[in-house]
Amino acid sequence: MISERLKKQIEFLLEADKMKSLYRQTYIIKDEKRSESMRDFEGDDCVHRRRENDAEHSFHLALFAMTLAEHSNIPVDLLRVMKMVIIHDIVEIDAGDTYCYDKEGYKTKRDREERAAERLFGILPEDQEREYRALWEEFENMDTAESRFAAALDRMQPMLLNYSKNGVSWQEHGVSYGQVYERNRHISLGSEKLWEYMEQVLQDALGKGFLRDE
Amino acid sequence: MISERLKKQIEFLLEADKMKSLYRQTYIIKDEKRSESMRDFEGDDCVHRRRENDAEHSFHLALFAMTLAEHSNIPVDLLRVMKMVIIHDIVEIDAGDTYCYDKEGYKTKRDREERAAERLFGILPEDQEREYRALWEEFENMDTAESRFAAALDRMQPMLLNYSKNGVSWQEHGVSYGQVYERNRHISLGSEKLWEYMEQVLQDALGKGFLRDE
Repeated sequence: MISERLKKQIEFLLEADKMKSLYRQTYIIKDEKRSESMRDFEGDDCVHRRRENDAEHSFHLALFAMTLAEHSNIPVDLLRVMKMVIIHDIVEIDAGDTYCYDKEGYKTKRDREERAAERLFGILPEDQEREYRALWEEFENMDTAESRFAAALDRMQPMLLNYSKNGVSWQEHGVSYGQVYERNRHISLGSEKLWEYMEQVLQDALGKGFLRDE
Repeated sequence: MISERLKKQIEFLLEADKMKSLYRQTYIIKDEKRSESMRDFEGDDCVHRRRENDAEHSFHLALFAMTLAEHSNIPVDLLRVMKMVIIHDIVEIDAGDTYCYDKEGYKTKRDREERAAERLFGILPEDQEREYRALWEEFENMDTAESRFAAALDRMQPMLLNYSKNGVSWQEHGVSYGQVYERNRHISLGSEKLWEYMEQVLQDALGKGFLRDE
């Protein structure tokens, strides 16, 4: 007998497949041919920039978390950090991605995401709904060592990808050095050491013209 | 002063970006338009099947692990399971994906992957190289509760995607019900309960003609 509990869990896991089709503003480092991702597609073998999706971003953050945990200002419960980064963007299945320099989008972000959390985590059995919802809220509120560290990684990862692509996504949005600096300085709340590293990356990006000066 | 240690860690994390361009045989559930993933691409808005890549697969497994851990035959250290599923396919950056029904490919798989593990985990500081290598070997050897459970998820996830896509990937490779059953029955070593569920999925796939009978 397959339990109702397991059915709900599987339903949630299959719903989360949609994370693979939610594209962010950041590009993956390696350019791609269309034929790599599609067996039955022919005729487009030129190399294109391809954006990163939420599933890839979340995978990358989990790898960042386990590899960089020692640099957190305060020792963290790594399991909680990893769970947090794996589920932190699931609300975007309903609420969409809000680009971090989009002021208008930010006004409605919280509202859209609350409703998304309701529906998406609501697919799960009640105890897990509560757990995932609490993890997501902890991440959003950034008031624990774990959430501050997770948020630091969430800001650092796209900056590193962007830097590796000569700042293309910053340029598309006309973002300046000052804006990026201000938007990301909270990395230091999670890790002084990682922020020190990212400050050097930003300096270098400015020097190379990947970011415009004000 | 940025430490050599942190530089190695970042180098490894950026190398792992390549996981996002390593496509597997399985398709993601939702079909896609080319324009979704590529901002500067125009003219291809028809909907295509898109294959899953290693980064997406690893993300999905981490979510499977945290959601289904209670179904492991033996209680597991969930942090170790999550680390294991996040790094288990990193060797494919050098060794490529070996389709699980490809007998020829399997002959050289171990060798190719050993060399890949050497180079890729070798980018990390030594203590982390040892840790990640040990995690990968534990996963491959399937002789602990954690690795058996992780391996169960690694087999179960593509089967569920495949089932959700009417068995398209099984059909492309002419795989039969018996082959899929044999190849995946080790799921029960990690979780009797999940195997019981997957047996029903396979029965249903057979009934619907997604899998051919022998």
